Amino acid sequence: MSLTNGSPSEAARAAKLSSRTLAILSTEDRNSALQSIHDALSAAKSDILNANARDLEIATKSAADGELSQSILKRLDLSRPGKFEDMLKGILDVKGLDDPVGKVDMRTELDDGLILQRQSCPIGVLLIIFEARPEVIANIASLAIKSANAAILKGGKESTESFKTIATVISKALESTKVPNDSIQLVTTRDAVDPLLQLSQYIDLVIPRGSNELVRHCQRMAHMPVLGHADGLCHYYIHPDVEPEMAASVIVDSKTDYPAACNSLESLLVNEDALKTILPGVASALLAKGVSLLCDPASKAALSETLNKDEAAMLQDAGESDFDTEFLDLILAIKTIPRTQDPLEAVDAAVEHINMHGSHHTDAILTSSEQIADRFCNGVDSACKFWNCSTRMSDGMRFGFGTEVGISTNKVHARGPVGLEGLCIHEYRIKGSGQGAAMYGAGGSRQWKHKKLPL
Amino acid sequence: MSLTNGSPSEAARAAKLSSRTLAILSTEDRNSALQSIHDALSAAKSDILNANARDLEIATKSAADGELSQSILKRLDLSRPGKFEDMLKGILDVKGLDDPVGKVDMRTELDDGLILQRQSCPIGVLLIIFEARPEVIANIASLAIKSANAAILKGGKESTESFKTIATVISKALESTKVPNDSIQLVTTRDAVDPLLQLSQYIDLVIPRGSNELVRHCQRMAHMPVLGHADGLCHYYIHPDVEPEMAASVIVDSKTDYPAACNSLESLLVNEDALKTILPGVASALLAKGVSLLCDPASKAALSETLNKDEAAMLQDAGESDFDTEFLDLILAIKTIPRTQDPLEAVDAAVEHINMHGSHHTDAILTSSEQIADRFCNGVDSACKFWNCSTRMSDGMRFGFGTEVGISTNKVHARGPVGLEGLCIHEYRIKGSGQGAAMYGAGGSRQWKHKKLPL
Repeated sequence: MSLTNGSPSEAARAAKLSSRTLAILSTEDRNSALQSIHDALSAAKSDILNANARDLEIATKSAADGELSQSILKRLDLSRPGKFEDMLKGILDVKGLDDPVGKVDMRTELDDGLILQRQSCPIGVLLIIFEARPEVIANIASLAIKSANAAILKGGKESTESFKTIATVISKALESTKVPNDSIQLVTTRDAVDPLLQLSQYIDLVIPRGSNELVRHCQRMAHMPVLGHADGLCHYYIHPDVEPEMAASVIVDSKTDYPAACNSLESLLVNEDALKTILPGVASALLAKGVSLLCDPASKAALSETLNKDEAAMLQDAGESDFDTEFLDLILAIKTIPRTQDPLEAVDAAVEHINMHGSHHTDAILTSSEQIADRFCNGVDSACKFWNCSTRMSDGMRFGFGTEVGISTNKVHARGPVGLEGLCIHEYRIKGSGQGAAMYGAGGSRQWKHKKLPL
Repeated sequence: MSLTNGSPSEAARAAKLSSRTLAILSTEDRNSALQSIHDALSAAKSDILNANARDLEIATKSAADGELSQSILKRLDLSRPGKFEDMLKGILDVKGLDDPVGKVDMRTELDDGLILQRQSCPIGVLLIIFEARPEVIANIASLAIKSANAAILKGGKESTESFKTIATVISKALESTKVPNDSIQLVTTRDAVDPLLQLSQYIDLVIPRGSNELVRHCQRMAHMPVLGHADGLCHYYIHPDVEPEMAASVIVDSKTDYPAACNSLESLLVNEDALKTILPGVASALLAKGVSLLCDPASKAALSETLNKDEAAMLQDAGESDFDTEFLDLILAIKTIPRTQDPLEAVDAAVEHINMHGSHHTDAILTSSEQIADRFCNGVDSACKFWNCSTRMSDGMRFGFGTEVGISTNKVHARGPVGLEGLCIHEYRIKGSGQGAAMYGAGGSRQWKHKKLPL
C-alpha cells in the first residue's frame, strides 16, 4: 500500500500498472497476503488505537463546537468494544470466501479444435471513497486483494491519522507478499475526489460508501461507472388478507431494526380494506417503539377510531413531500390505497406509487395470496422485491454472500446487495488450431458446431 | 412504435412509462409481436424500398459532391440482393432465441420458509444511436422486444425516409399485439442526441452503433452507462515455435477477412527469432492480398533479405504512431519483440506493448506452447484473448449467441461480444413467512441456513 501525497493521477497510474500483476497472482498468493495484513494489524493494535485517539480528540472538539455530528464521532471510534476485533475477523472472513476470479461459466465447442471459454476476472482498478469509519480501509483492502483488483482509497479527513497508521501497517505487511505495493493506494490529499473521478483511463469503477450527497456527487461527476445507491426509500404494501400479527412484527422490524439504514422502511401503503383490520395493530406496535406516524387523511381517520386515546393523540398528518422523503429515523409515512373491485387493481395502484416515488432499492408486500404477491413483484421496478419478510433482509451478509461491497440500484452490472462477484467481470478465451473466419459462412466449407461443453 | 417529432424528454418519459408494462409480458406475447413485425415488414417491402430509394437519391448526390462516403452510400442501400430478406430473417432468428428474461440463476434457503431467488429481468429503457444502415431499426426493435426493454432509436439523417416508413409499418403491426406502442420510440429530431444523453432519470443504458467518433461522444456526454467500444486496435503476437503455414493463414484471415471491422488485426508483434522463419511467409501472403506492411527497422531488414525483390520493394517504414492507429484498411504495422533468454520474458514484452497501445478488445497469440499461450492470455487486459485462431472470431454470431448487440470493451456489466443477456440485469426476490432481521444475529434466536437450492 502506498500513501500518496502526490497527485491523484500518479496514484491512479501506479494502481493501473500494478493491476495486471495482481490479476495473475494465484489464489494462495492473495489469501496469504490477507493473512499477513491480518497479523500485522493485530500486532499493531496499540499504535492504531493511539492514532485513532488523536483523530478522536480533534473530532470531539469539532463535535463540541457543533461542526461534527455525534454519529460521525461514534463511527470514528475504533476503541469501542469489539470493533477492532470485528475488523480483524472481517479480513479472515474475506480470506475464507471462494476465489471469485477464474470461474468458468461458459464453454462452447465452436468447431473441432476451436473451444470458447468465458471466465471471471478482476475489473482492474477500483476507486473507493468513504467517510469517517477507519476500519473500512482494512475491509476494502481485503475485498480488493481477494478479487485481484487494485484499489485507490480516499477516506474522510476526520480519520486521517487512523488511516495513515493502518495504511503504513498494511504497506509493510504487503512487502513480504507477492501483492505489488502499488496495488492499494491511499490518497490523503484534500480535494482529490473530483480529479480522481475524471481519470477514466486508469480507474474502472467508483464505489462511494457514505452519505447520499457523496454518492450523488460521484454519480454526477464520474467519467467511469459508479456502483451504489443514493437513496433507500423502501415501501411496504399491506394487502387486507394478511395475518395481523405477522404484519405488525414485519413492519416493526422493517422500520425499527436500524432506522438509519438504507434498507429500512420509509413509506407504508395500506389497502383501504386493511385500515381498520390490520393497520391498528401495526400502528400500535410502531407507536410503542417510538415511531412517529405521518398519516394521510383516510388512515388517520381509521386509526383515530380504532386506537386508544393516547395513541390517537400521537398521530400526525402527512404532507405530499413525506412520500418522497428518506427519513432515516423513527418516522413513517402512511398512505391509503383505495379499495378496488378487482384486488389486483389496488396492487397496481400501489406499484405505480412505488415506481414513481421509490428509489428502486427494496420494496415489499404483505399478503397471503401468491397471485397478489406475484402481481406486486412483477410490477415494482426494484432491485429487491420481498413478500412477507422485513425490508432489512436486503443485505449481502443476510443473502449469504459472506461480505458486502454495497447495495446497488444500478440497472447494469450488479443490482441489489453486491458481493465479491460484483468486483469481477468476465473475459473470453479461445483455443484454436488455425481457424479463420473465412472458413465459415457463405464462402467457407466449415459449419459452426456451437456445442455447449460441461464446465 | 411512436415516431416522435416532439421533445427528446417526452419520448424518453413515454418509453420509461411503457417499460414496466413490457417487462411483465409473457414470452409468447413478445414472440408474437416479433412475428407481427416480420409479417408486416414483409408485406410492405415495396413501400420501404421506395422510401429507401428517396434516401438513396439524396445520398447519391451528396456522395457525388464529396459530402458523403461511398461506404455510407453502400450501407444505406436496402435494395442490394439479400439485404431485405436478411433483415426479415434476423427478426425470426431473434424470435427463435431462448427468452433471456426470468431466468433463475440463484436460489438460497436463508432460513425455514425464507427463500431468496435471483432472476434475470430487463434493464428498462435503452437508447440506441446508429448511423446509416436502415435495417438496424428492425434488428434493434426485435432485440429490445425480445428482452422486454423499451427502446429509443435515433438514426442518422441520411436514412430518414427509410426509417420513417419502417417505423410506421412496425408501429401499425404492434397495434394488434400486447407490446405497448410507446415502448419503441423513434426520434428523428435533429440534434436530439445530446439532450437524450442527459436523461438518466428515464434512460438506463446507451448503445451507440456507429463510428468511433459517435461512441466517444456518447462516452463523454452520457449521464448513464454506455455499452460499446470506441476502438478495435487488435494485436497478434507471433512466437517462434508456431507452424509457419498456420501463422500465415490465421494472420491473413485476421487482417483481410473484413478490414473495416473492429475485430480485424491492426498491429503484428513478431518475436525476433521468428523474423526470418515465420514472418516471411506471413508477409508474402499479406502482400499477395494487397496489404501494405509498415515495418519497424528489424522486421524490414529481415524481410528485405528473405522476400523476393518485388515483394521487398513494397515494404514501408512504420512510424511510432502507426502502433496506435486503427487502420480499418488493408494496412498492417509490424513490430519486433527482441529475443530474451527466457522466452516468457518476450511474451511479457509483447503483453506490455499490447496493454499500453491496444484497445482491450481482442488480442491473440500464435504458439504451439500452452505455457506461452497461458502467459500471454493471463497478461493481456483484453475482452477476448485468442490462441491460434483469427481475431475475427470475436463476434456474437460466431460465439453462438444467436445475435449480437455489439462488442463491449467496458469493465463492468458486459464485456466482449454481447448477446441478449447483455440487455438484462437481475433482481432479487424473497418469499418469507414473517421473518424480521432482529430474529438473527446477536439479539436473535434464529441462525442463517444459507443453503443453496437447486434451480
